[in-house]
Amino acid sequence: MSRLKTIEWTDNSVRIINQTKLPTELIYEQIDTVEQMYHAIKILKVRGAPAIGIAAAFGVYLAIRNFPESGTATDFMTILEKNADYLSESRPTAVNLFWAIRRMKDTARKLIEAGKTIIDIKQELLNEAICVLEEDRQTGRLIGEAGVKLLGNRRTILTHCNAGGLATAEYGTALAPIYVGAERGLRFHVYADETRPLLQGARITAFELKQAGIPVTLICDNMAATVMARGLVEAVIVGADRITANGDTANKIGTYGVALLAKAHNIPFYVAAPFSTFDMSMKTGSQIPIEERDDTEVSCGFGKQTAPSGVNIFNPAFDVTPAHLITAFITDKGVIYPPFDQNLKCMQ
Amino acid sequence: MSRLKTIEWTDNSVRIINQTKLPTELIYEQIDTVEQMYHAIKILKVRGAPAIGIAAAFGVYLAIRNFPESGTATDFMTILEKNADYLSESRPTAVNLFWAIRRMKDTARKLIEAGKTIIDIKQELLNEAICVLEEDRQTGRLIGEAGVKLLGNRRTILTHCNAGGLATAEYGTALAPIYVGAERGLRFHVYADETRPLLQGARITAFELKQAGIPVTLICDNMAATVMARGLVEAVIVGADRITANGDTANKIGTYGVALLAKAHNIPFYVAAPFSTFDMSMKTGSQIPIEERDDTEVSCGFGKQTAPSGVNIFNPAFDVTPAHLITAFITDKGVIYPPFDQNLKCMQ
Repeated sequence: MSRLKTIEWTDNSVRIINQTKLPTELIYEQIDTVEQMYHAIKILKVRGAPAIGIAAAFGVYLAIRNFPESGTATDFMTILEKNADYLSESRPTAVNLFWAIRRMKDTARKLIEAGKTIIDIKQELLNEAICVLEEDRQTGRLIGEAGVKLLGNRRTILTHCNAGGLATAEYGTALAPIYVGAERGLRFHVYADETRPLLQGARITAFELKQAGIPVTLICDNMAATVMARGLVEAVIVGADRITANGDTANKIGTYGVALLAKAHNIPFYVAAPFSTFDMSMKTGSQIPIEERDDTEVSCGFGKQTAPSGVNIFNPAFDVTPAHLITAFITDKGVIYPPFDQNLKCMQ
Repeated sequence: MSRLKTIEWTDNSVRIINQTKLPTELIYEQIDTVEQMYHAIKILKVRGAPAIGIAAAFGVYLAIRNFPESGTATDFMTILEKNADYLSESRPTAVNLFWAIRRMKDTARKLIEAGKTIIDIKQELLNEAICVLEEDRQTGRLIGEAGVKLLGNRRTILTHCNAGGLATAEYGTALAPIYVGAERGLRFHVYADETRPLLQGARITAFELKQAGIPVTLICDNMAATVMARGLVEAVIVGADRITANGDTANKIGTYGVALLAKAHNIPFYVAAPFSTFDMSMKTGSQIPIEERDDTEVSCGFGKQTAPSGVNIFNPAFDVTPAHLITAFITDKGVIYPPFDQNLKCMQ
């Protein structure tokens, strides 16, 4: 058993795991055209912000790889930009998607300005996409290294949602310390909250850990407290969607509750995230907008109506964990301890 | 809109709500034979300990109501006991079921010993079953009265699982203060945890409150913390499966977590239960056995597999909330405050 490769460049094409088939089937798919990549992102065959960014970078390359060597630079850029716009519409709110596409466009523009040949530009764009993937892999590795050191002898970890390899190229964020530790022969046991309403913990976290041969126990979200009370968990590690200048952290709904439970049981609560997740333009978590999602995620989440028709439902996608509940951040630039406002400022 | 009648004696038969059709359909069914009642209990058309007890009491009556007036007392008891045994097998672990059946058997035996006629005995047994129902209704009302007084001006309540009318004759326990308050024109708003894995909060609590015209907002269990942080909840009320002599309380899984979250937000946490729920033979909650239920409740809860095959799952049905997290008990004998060990002893 080994870590899953969410997205790879192999045999002159992109190979992805079709995540819509999880957790019942592990199916790899070959992506050879930009249309296939658009579709894969749109219907969530690839999901998770970093993985979407990588997919989009390869998508841009696939769009131009058959451009004739004798073509003009102007025609090349026209085709590239048209396809970049097309890819941008696959998941309209994915920040990493736009970032990766812009990076590929900027690279192309610079190469054209430098007078490179079409054949060279195509090769360089492939290299750039591979670079986006490798950088993400490296970020995960660095988070993992820092996390393993921080955990010391603690081997039983609770996590919420999926901040694992399947959201990134390979290591993930919250699960990176587990994977890096496992490479070194450390034997972790992970408790995975199923994470209602969309069950990313059950469908994805439990799946990827099991595939990697790491012992995992799946629980309902409301069982975390009893697992902690029984002394089964020595640390909590979660991911983050956005972290403000004072350390307040927005993450998947339920994270705040887990942080409170960890505090009540004197269990350290760690947030693992790439340094790019820190948004120093926001002072505190109260400024973070919280998306509310469709009622049917709660009322008909499993293909069957499980709540009365027309009942009022509150379905926030995220919550904010205040900085004072966070023991430390585990980042690709190392571990950050409180006082976060001061220590984050120093790292800018 | 009005409170649902879970089980009633009307038109010379028992009328029940077929709870297997909830939350999508509200269907009343007429039960005229002991076989129909056995089936109704077995396949969970009637569920909730008090409601099962009432159903069983009526089941015993239905079994003998066509016994010929000219028959012998011996034959009467033979038939009654055979059917009592039959009913006992409908839900083998339901304490209230055995209790109600024993009560009916004891009543019959006493009436026979007193030399009553068959026609009188049959009428008295019907009265006894109605009495079981009315006593439960009265217990709910008393809990409701005590709860309304205790709540004062607080109108926003969070509850977990279903300790409502559909588990009892009418008022329930945790929801009794809401219903009694509503009778007096008080306008409550209830946040109902959906309560994984079996979603009793979504399927039953949200349904019965909506039917009764009481504003209810359904949330996933992991949203309770954020609802509290937003100041949307002024009190938590839950039911109980068993309460030990020191006040430790076993209830549906997730209750302990809600109690910790309430504490962290300075929100009072109340347990509403009939006085019969207190088990003075147990000193503390650590003595309460915790049932672990089938993995498939978590992995395939709603007819669809949502976790990887063969993954390890921890599925405790209950947890224990330590007494120090409980603000007060709301019972049919009034409100009980800390120190619980002393105050419970005084009430025996």
